[in-house]
Amino acid sequence: MSQSILIRGGSVVNADCETRADVLCIDGVIAAVGEGAAALAPAGCEVLDASGQYVVPGGIDPHTHMQLPFMGTVTMDDFYTGTAAAMAGGTTSIIDFVIPNPQQPLLEAYQTWRGWAEKSASDYSFHMAITWWDESVRHDMGTLVREEGINSFKHFMAYKNAIMCDDETLVNSFRRALELGAMPTVHAENGELVYLLQQEVQKMGITGPEGHPLSRPPMVEGEAANRAIAIADVLGVPIYVVHVSCIESAEAIARARARGQRVYGEVLAGHLVVDDSVYRDPDFTKAAAHVMSPPFRPKEHQEALWRGLQSGQLHTTATDHCTFCAEQKRMGAENFAKIPNGTGGVEERMAVLWSAGVNTGRLTPSEWVAITSANAAKLFNIYPKKGCVAVGADADLVLWDPAGTKTLSVKTQHSKGDYNIFEGMALTGVPSHTISQGRLVYANGDLRAVRGAGRYLKRPAFGAGFAAAEKRARELAPTAVVRT
Amino acid sequence: MSQSILIRGGSVVNADCETRADVLCIDGVIAAVGEGAAALAPAGCEVLDASGQYVVPGGIDPHTHMQLPFMGTVTMDDFYTGTAAAMAGGTTSIIDFVIPNPQQPLLEAYQTWRGWAEKSASDYSFHMAITWWDESVRHDMGTLVREEGINSFKHFMAYKNAIMCDDETLVNSFRRALELGAMPTVHAENGELVYLLQQEVQKMGITGPEGHPLSRPPMVEGEAANRAIAIADVLGVPIYVVHVSCIESAEAIARARARGQRVYGEVLAGHLVVDDSVYRDPDFTKAAAHVMSPPFRPKEHQEALWRGLQSGQLHTTATDHCTFCAEQKRMGAENFAKIPNGTGGVEERMAVLWSAGVNTGRLTPSEWVAITSANAAKLFNIYPKKGCVAVGADADLVLWDPAGTKTLSVKTQHSKGDYNIFEGMALTGVPSHTISQGRLVYANGDLRAVRGAGRYLKRPAFGAGFAAAEKRARELAPTAVVRT
Amino acid sequence: MSQSILIRGGSVVNADCETRADVLCIDGVIAAVGEGAAALAPAGCEVLDASGQYVVPGGIDPHTHMQLPFMGTVTMDDFYTGTAAAMAGGTTSIIDFVIPNPQQPLLEAYQTWRGWAEKSASDYSFHMAITWWDESVRHDMGTLVREEGINSFKHFMAYKNAIMCDDETLVNSFRRALELGAMPTVHAENGELVYLLQQEVQKMGITGPEGHPLSRPPMVEGEAANRAIAIADVLGVPIYVVHVSCIESAEAIARARARGQRVYGEVLAGHLVVDDSVYRDPDFTKAAAHVMSPPFRPKEHQEALWRGLQSGQLHTTATDHCTFCAEQKRMGAENFAKIPNGTGGVEERMAVLWSAGVNTGRLTPSEWVAITSANAAKLFNIYPKKGCVAVGADADLVLWDPAGTKTLSVKTQHSKGDYNIFEGMALTGVPSHTISQGRLVYANGDLRAVRGAGRYLKRPAFGAGFAAAEKRARELAPTAVVRT
Amino acid sequence: MSQSILIRGGSVVNADCETRADVLCIDGVIAAVGEGAAALAPAGCEVLDASGQYVVPGGIDPHTHMQLPFMGTVTMDDFYTGTAAAMAGGTTSIIDFVIPNPQQPLLEAYQTWRGWAEKSASDYSFHMAITWWDESVRHDMGTLVREEGINSFKHFMAYKNAIMCDDETLVNSFRRALELGAMPTVHAENGELVYLLQQEVQKMGITGPEGHPLSRPPMVEGEAANRAIAIADVLGVPIYVVHVSCIESAEAIARARARGQRVYGEVLAGHLVVDDSVYRDPDFTKAAAHVMSPPFRPKEHQEALWRGLQSGQLHTTATDHCTFCAEQKRMGAENFAKIPNGTGGVEERMAVLWSAGVNTGRLTPSEWVAITSANAAKLFNIYPKKGCVAVGADADLVLWDPAGTKTLSVKTQHSKGDYNIFEGMALTGVPSHTISQGRLVYANGDLRAVRGAGRYLKRPAFGAGFAAAEKRARELAPTAVVRT
Repeated sequence: MSQSILIRGGSVVNADCETRADVLCIDGVIAAVGEGAAALAPAGCEVLDASGQYVVPGGIDPHTHMQLPFMGTVTMDDFYTGTAAAMAGGTTSIIDFVIPNPQQPLLEAYQTWRGWAEKSASDYSFHMAITWWDESVRHDMGTLVREEGINSFKHFMAYKNAIMCDDETLVNSFRRALELGAMPTVHAENGELVYLLQQEVQKMGITGPEGHPLSRPPMVEGEAANRAIAIADVLGVPIYVVHVSCIESAEAIARARARGQRVYGEVLAGHLVVDDSVYRDPDFTKAAAHVMSPPFRPKEHQEALWRGLQSGQLHTTATDHCTFCAEQKRMGAENFAKIPNGTGGVEERMAVLWSAGVNTGRLTPSEWVAITSANAAKLFNIYPKKGCVAVGADADLVLWDPAGTKTLSVKTQHSKGDYNIFEGMALTGVPSHTISQGRLVYANGDLRAVRGAGRYLKRPAFGAGFAAAEKRARELAPTAVVRT
Repeated sequence: MSQSILIRGGSVVNADCETRADVLCIDGVIAAVGEGAAALAPAGCEVLDASGQYVVPGGIDPHTHMQLPFMGTVTMDDFYTGTAAAMAGGTTSIIDFVIPNPQQPLLEAYQTWRGWAEKSASDYSFHMAITWWDESVRHDMGTLVREEGINSFKHFMAYKNAIMCDDETLVNSFRRALELGAMPTVHAENGELVYLLQQEVQKMGITGPEGHPLSRPPMVEGEAANRAIAIADVLGVPIYVVHVSCIESAEAIARARARGQRVYGEVLAGHLVVDDSVYRDPDFTKAAAHVMSPPFRPKEHQEALWRGLQSGQLHTTATDHCTFCAEQKRMGAENFAKIPNGTGGVEERMAVLWSAGVNTGRLTPSEWVAITSANAAKLFNIYPKKGCVAVGADADLVLWDPAGTKTLSVKTQHSKGDYNIFEGMALTGVPSHTISQGRLVYANGDLRAVRGAGRYLKRPAFGAGFAAAEKRARELAPTAVVRT
Repeated sequence: MSQSILIRGGSVVNADCETRADVLCIDGVIAAVGEGAAALAPAGCEVLDASGQYVVPGGIDPHTHMQLPFMGTVTMDDFYTGTAAAMAGGTTSIIDFVIPNPQQPLLEAYQTWRGWAEKSASDYSFHMAITWWDESVRHDMGTLVREEGINSFKHFMAYKNAIMCDDETLVNSFRRALELGAMPTVHAENGELVYLLQQEVQKMGITGPEGHPLSRPPMVEGEAANRAIAIADVLGVPIYVVHVSCIESAEAIARARARGQRVYGEVLAGHLVVDDSVYRDPDFTKAAAHVMSPPFRPKEHQEALWRGLQSGQLHTTATDHCTFCAEQKRMGAENFAKIPNGTGGVEERMAVLWSAGVNTGRLTPSEWVAITSANAAKLFNIYPKKGCVAVGADADLVLWDPAGTKTLSVKTQHSKGDYNIFEGMALTGVPSHTISQGRLVYANGDLRAVRGAGRYLKRPAFGAGFAAAEKRARELAPTAVVRT
Repeated sequence: MSQSILIRGGSVVNADCETRADVLCIDGVIAAVGEGAAALAPAGCEVLDASGQYVVPGGIDPHTHMQLPFMGTVTMDDFYTGTAAAMAGGTTSIIDFVIPNPQQPLLEAYQTWRGWAEKSASDYSFHMAITWWDESVRHDMGTLVREEGINSFKHFMAYKNAIMCDDETLVNSFRRALELGAMPTVHAENGELVYLLQQEVQKMGITGPEGHPLSRPPMVEGEAANRAIAIADVLGVPIYVVHVSCIESAEAIARARARGQRVYGEVLAGHLVVDDSVYRDPDFTKAAAHVMSPPFRPKEHQEALWRGLQSGQLHTTATDHCTFCAEQKRMGAENFAKIPNGTGGVEERMAVLWSAGVNTGRLTPSEWVAITSANAAKLFNIYPKKGCVAVGADADLVLWDPAGTKTLSVKTQHSKGDYNIFEGMALTGVPSHTISQGRLVYANGDLRAVRGAGRYLKRPAFGAGFAAAEKRARELAPTAVVRT
């Protein structure tokens, strides 16, 4: 039996414009948008009244870590609870990460993560982390792109003696990604500097969470971002920088874009509104709850991130959702460098961005759609199936109530984490209904997430547009000099 | 009787993505896009085979001067011949300029230009130039925005002793534009420096066209762009810089955008591919034919302009189409400063951008649509009625043949001008058919432009999105200190 | 009878290095530096023990307004009291300003100021302000340079309807300065924007001193600095920007210097340590006492100014010493725009710079000498006669006691002003002795300034070094094209 | 018997100013400068007539490789022939490099180089290269600084599988240098990228010298410079970047300096006037003769380097003098990556800089002294003993004849190399006499260099000025949070 929903009287907001239109969803796909939609609604169609509300594409969080294993334990949210929380906040797709151990075959890790993710309530996809290098890695990257629908590879430039990539691996992997039409992405922090500074800070007698930002100052991130971007420039491959948190890396991106380079930047909701004073909280639990990398920054960095989003120098918003509980955080009670890194946010992202972005006049509703959904879909090649309210697109939709209010709190969140970095933040503008695959999964506080309903999203390799810069470079390549 | 066209088998390219789809136009509007389009075609519907071709929104040239009066004479192209030539090149809308003489009432000039434009073959609109200031000008700006559909005001920062705005007028007019929800635009060159340099260059014994670029070096433009942008920033109003021709002004725009300011830049097709060596041509006629302001620049500036378009720091492409013939150009035979400024290009723009932009790998087809059509529609508030292939939009469409070839020449151009600045340029990628208001107006070399068929496009004032920055500024405004 | 002083056991600090050396002054000139100095001391020579102290060149304040007439009244400090206060703080030369009324002949104003300045206790010189333009101004600039030893011309880009220069005057005057080998200088604020904003701020109901910074935001200064620098660049003349107070203008200077342009920047001691919170003081007298232009800025701008001094992008420090008393400030009780602009500081500058610059590790002692003395001497062409401890130089010297302490206060200052913007600032590092023209004029709190002892310093026109850029530009100038 | 020279009638040029003065040298030291000098001349004093000439401090070349061992052979110039050639060109001091093999004890390598250098004709000093890392290296750095007068450590960021430093070594060595008061220096090229590109270029079938610049594009240098500067910034240590050759690294330096960081840049004479077209010479010998790293660059980079020197963003000029002959260069006949890297220039540097710098109006004579001598002396802590014409300084002097002419050629050079990268360059402005240690070593073409006359220059560790930034950072360091 066909399932259908008709959304009447709302204002449809896409990244390019905003129009009053009805939207009809049939069997998981958008069947009609506009005047004629109602007429096409089948008998028994569910009707939602969206008057006074915006109808927007479901959010895409391109950076989450659900069910992440760590030192014999695992984050609080698994793929079910994490995606369910996401849908309560209007996010209907996530892109998580497969992270092989060094020397672990990529495909083995991939299968492990695919298994874990089967319980997802929403659609999901994976970036593959490159944590080591040899010929098998090069080969498996090809298999993943061509057969498994993975078109992006992540590189950690920090975490020395663990999953850190050195320059040799970066160079090799970026080169291979170009060949495959896949997007390299980087966690940009200079791991050697972090390693030294962690020791120096401890030598100064600072062992608590306040040492965390001291060991990872902004320039540590700025340097790594600049380096990864320069390598991508030399090789002619686009690049995506995850969780840009500071002026220094935002400027590295802006400089590269001003040269015409295809560089993209992601910002976390947390970095936009939380500052580094949290690390000096006298309560260890609170201070440690905010430990993530890159750390929260002094306030002036927030302004730079907003400006990047406003000007199109930064492109997506994410959360790096990774929920370690207080007990897990206490593993670093004597040494900030051992506090598991991670904070939540997958449920709060869209509403935080609306309140702090749209309500303040920084962003238009269309710009908000771009940075919470459409841009991620474009950059990871699932647009317009995702990220767009248009005929033929997946029926992942949100009815956004600009007058609705909510105060964020760990007490009311759906995430299984035991902390909320946005605790007490009063928002205006919240999702009233979330539709995933054409089904109503959240309605005015009632979360109807279905374990295992989510589908794995294959993302195809990039084509001509991606290779644009490379093509140009090749055509200009000089030839050998003939010498006799 | 209803008129309809069905375009089958093409690849529809919008600014956000590219999809295979049929397109049905009925009575001047796009009635269907996609699988079902053919089924909806009425009897007798004309069918165009677009296989192997792109179906793109008709081009918008946001900067033309048709029928421009000058010293008792007038440019070669009037609104009919100019718009006809445009349609032969795939451009289906122009935005021209009403330019009152100093002290002339704005509405009087507006009516004059409206009269001249009635013969247009394509749709058209007007920017209003602010060439002087008093209370009547302030008042008339309101009338034009509210009643006549003008939402953009142009300011010439050069042409001292003629139509140049001084800073007082800039400041007053920008402030008024903000109030009205209208976009200020500027021709950015420091008129005082140009005036001095014209005299100095002549004192050096240089009176020919080679003196033209010497009197208008890039920094003259860079300074004015920076100044206009700074004024806009202080007042909280967006700004659009016309014909950005050099590194210096492109950088001024990029700097402002990096601050989050809403600044937009336009590039002329000519500045992207023609360099300043033309002014040293020993044939006066050829050298003078290239005299326009800002002048063509040394080659390194072209690269900066392309990079701006690639990175989204520059937004639209135009032509400043303004065709003075050789005889008119001879008015400056003894003094380059008296050569009437202007070159053509309205017909060639889209194909030049395709060959030099898409074929080289600089731009994707979607990016080309953005900078030749969609962005102008968005920035001047006629999107998605114009600039988009979507149901409900005006049926202004082009079938673009990426394999078609053409060598540009004054001999084959439709413009009435007697020179072609792109002479001899061999292109791959040309329009095979142009549709305007749902009518086929150009088909494989057969131009069927209809005198007077064009409609005046009212462009509404901008709403909340435009005022975003302003709103934020106002909310942060400090209050008076209470002193007792 | 010859007058001589021998300074023994100190550490001589010049801008280029620091060495232990004795210094012998005879008849107003430095006669010996180094080991042999003591042996050359004439009988009866006064001996100062400088052990533990630095021996540095007397400070030069290149920006003061002593005895400035204003609306029928005059600043509190005349040339005698002002220069006496300067000497108490280690400053032994000032460069003040001749400011003709619009239409007043330059030479007439010059003679007036020369008369006023005869009572100076220290050496002094004048910049000439260009406040209007006609052929007589052009002519008089030549006379002043060639006959009166004036090699710098000041241009106010603010103060509309008073002494503001428009672009026409800027362009003409800069061009003339280049011809004469004289340095153009600018007070950079866009006067049209200030004029509008003053009205807008008052319309918002803000009439107190807190309206002053609102009417002169940083971008107003940044724009004007960029404009003046661009004009100088196009004309090929060096330029000196007075009282750089904000990030925006510091960046405009840095950008130009990165292009190789000879641009120099001056910073006021006040802008380095006082922030804009002063304008919100509930006591009108205090708030108004800080009204000067450009206004004090938010704290983040201070860091940018320090960085400019550290990196050599900014070159001199000054005070804009201009002491209006509380009663005079009350002229703007109802309207901040009418508060006479000005603050003191000529006495405090060197010690403020030492405490906030050298003691914090920002600057080395040599760098401090450069920015308080040597650079001003070089930029205004009186080096090494001034600004250097070397044989043959004027015996203007300071014994600087790095261990001496002082708390700044209006109660202990020598200036006749009734306010001290550095009130309560505790300093370490003060002058113990000041020598002017080889005479001890200040010794451990005992000020022995002599009315009328100061001499007018003629500053010669610049020679080849100044014209370096111009020469290069001329040699690269293109020639006329020969057309037949 | 005392040896003395009196230089009469010249114009003494120091970095800070230019004055007419006689100069008396006695026993290797400057005994008097100025009017009284002649009177102090001892009997039998040699007198040089410097009328019409400049008297300048002897040049310092801070970057040479004399007698460099390489694959069983050695460069053509040893310490005697190299320093003799230097003196013929007005350079009286060099700073060469000790380069230990990986795992070789630093002190062992140091002693080897000290032995080789005993034959030097001019004074000389050494930078120590850090090519590997362990605790012995850390320890030996201390010994070298404290006992051997080495205050600068060089790091090669290129040359993978040979002497390349990875980030771990950079971080450790920079940290240690800070502790010791020594200056870290870097050869900035990303060695991993070079390694990959060398292979890729060869896969493209390019094996000749034209492949050399393709494998080391400017961004490879820009990235490494930015990285080293960022590491220095985080650690709070100054840094000196050797042979800055391109826009990208010049901008990295300028950005850091604009943040107030103490970053210094060196430019080679060759990079200022030779461009990359040389690598496409059809004669392998000529093309290979120019192979050095970083390679010569496209012309636009030269302008950026000049601008850096003019604006004080770049500080010294050097040569990287390293003379491999044609036969040695043929080791790379089949593979450009195997061509020994190096070119000459120690003799030509000062005259090339004068002709291309001073004669063109880019630099004043004082600025030329700064960048050829005084700045190197200051940055490596041997000023004012070297780099300054002043009483007490070493009598290393040059009589510079601004009217003298010379055409550079391998035929007339004193270097033992078999190629001259400046071949055919016609210069105006040459040294007429060179004085080293108070002895005339070159007079109008007659070179009187004495084997072994040169002395090893100990350079003391830096003191307070160097640590300025570090001190400030430490004072601002946050403390631990007290948690109970």
